[in-house]
Amino acid sequence: MRLKFLGTGAAGGIPLWGCACSVCSRARIDVSYSRRPNCAVVDAGGTRLLLDAGVMDLAERFPSGTLSAILITHFHADHVQGLLHLRWGMGDINVYAPHDTEGCADLYKNHGPLKFNHVSKFEIFNVGDIFITPVPLVHSKPTLGFCIEYKGARLAYLTDTREIPPSTAAFLTEWKPHTICLDCTYPPGTEGSRNHFDLPEAIEISKDYPDSNFVLMHIGHSLDEWLMSHPATVPSRMVVGQDNESIDCPETE
Amino acid sequence: MRLKFLGTGAAGGIPLWGCACSVCSRARIDVSYSRRPNCAVVDAGGTRLLLDAGVMDLAERFPSGTLSAILITHFHADHVQGLLHLRWGMGDINVYAPHDTEGCADLYKNHGPLKFNHVSKFEIFNVGDIFITPVPLVHSKPTLGFCIEYKGARLAYLTDTREIPPSTAAFLTEWKPHTICLDCTYPPGTEGSRNHFDLPEAIEISKDYPDSNFVLMHIGHSLDEWLMSHPATVPSRMVVGQDNESIDCPETE
Repeated sequence: MRLKFLGTGAAGGIPLWGCACSVCSRARIDVSYSRRPNCAVVDAGGTRLLLDAGVMDLAERFPSGTLSAILITHFHADHVQGLLHLRWGMGDINVYAPHDTEGCADLYKNHGPLKFNHVSKFEIFNVGDIFITPVPLVHSKPTLGFCIEYKGARLAYLTDTREIPPSTAAFLTEWKPHTICLDCTYPPGTEGSRNHFDLPEAIEISKDYPDSNFVLMHIGHSLDEWLMSHPATVPSRMVVGQDNESIDCPETE
Repeated sequence: MRLKFLGTGAAGGIPLWGCACSVCSRARIDVSYSRRPNCAVVDAGGTRLLLDAGVMDLAERFPSGTLSAILITHFHADHVQGLLHLRWGMGDINVYAPHDTEGCADLYKNHGPLKFNHVSKFEIFNVGDIFITPVPLVHSKPTLGFCIEYKGARLAYLTDTREIPPSTAAFLTEWKPHTICLDCTYPPGTEGSRNHFDLPEAIEISKDYPDSNFVLMHIGHSLDEWLMSHPATVPSRMVVGQDNESIDCPETE
């Protein structure tokens, strides 16, 4: 099972429009440092899942029929804005998303080919031979993480959360994922009420799952700037995700 | 004064995702036939206005500081979806838009650098040396057309409407624009209640303004398909707009 990041950035991505910080300036010169809004594609056994839809060129990236389904963690615009265009198309595609009466803009009203399926925490569903367990997260919108399994390959995709709730933590401890992709938006010392983890929190969480590798994602420009002057500050089991990078999870069955 | 179309398409653009009609298939082979969601940029006297924001790559097209202001005709997603990304940036840019308590998604709440100014029908405002008269249109959201003037060059941008209301018609008759860019989404014979003009309606409207050139825009794939088999069906003063095409309005002062 392979996950490929289409984006690893926070809401505005990198470079942020109009931002002159060193990280945003660097990304304007060298596109390999840019980060699109956080989303990914998972491939296994001929099934292809899109995880979140924050990139704006989905129609060009994925001609109709090339995606098996779309999984939406929550309805903030940076996770669904790519659907606003796609929904004027033809055909049928299943979109699995948390229960959220509001959705985003008029997506529910004018859904076009998008068939929204509201899924609940810990109620397993499958797309082809991939099995997905939604797990609760804590954010300013109803938000789910997705624990994704194919023939024993296990990957948890946990974005946009300020907490791993006890029931999710208990599930992960039992489930033992090979890789946990984890929200890590901010550098150490970010004050104020937050809806995302900072780096010390992400490192602390990783200690609870000693058998898992960690990939940090939903990276804000202030964290990238901090990492420029603090290289080698993440544990050996942890990497900072990059756009277009792939992660392989070995099948065990 | 020059207007350049960034997009001349209806909500989903052309090709529509998953559509196998001859027009959408042609546009997949030859991108010059594609249409992005309707929007345009106007340049005059060092001022640059963006008219609607339906294209998704505004940050790449317009680095911060290169737009003087953004004019929004209404808050349907295909006219504002590009703002969802832009608003996470830095700085300040004026956005002129109709009074609409709802807006789109959380644009008002998290507006970032976008400074929304709600404008009213027939209340002239200016950006640099360009003067804009908003005119009422009739759509399923509060919608304004924009009558744009620079040193006697006059252009009316009237998209997303099913009617030219009497007050707008009277204004246009008096104002005598050089060019009217007009919503024309559907081919002849399109049944049902509509929020956009079809081709016979657009041609009929053009007769009321004999001194103006007409550029049809917000073109749906069914109109393009009809035009493939009915070439030369528009009057000589009328053209069907194309993406990336420019229109020059002569200054007279």
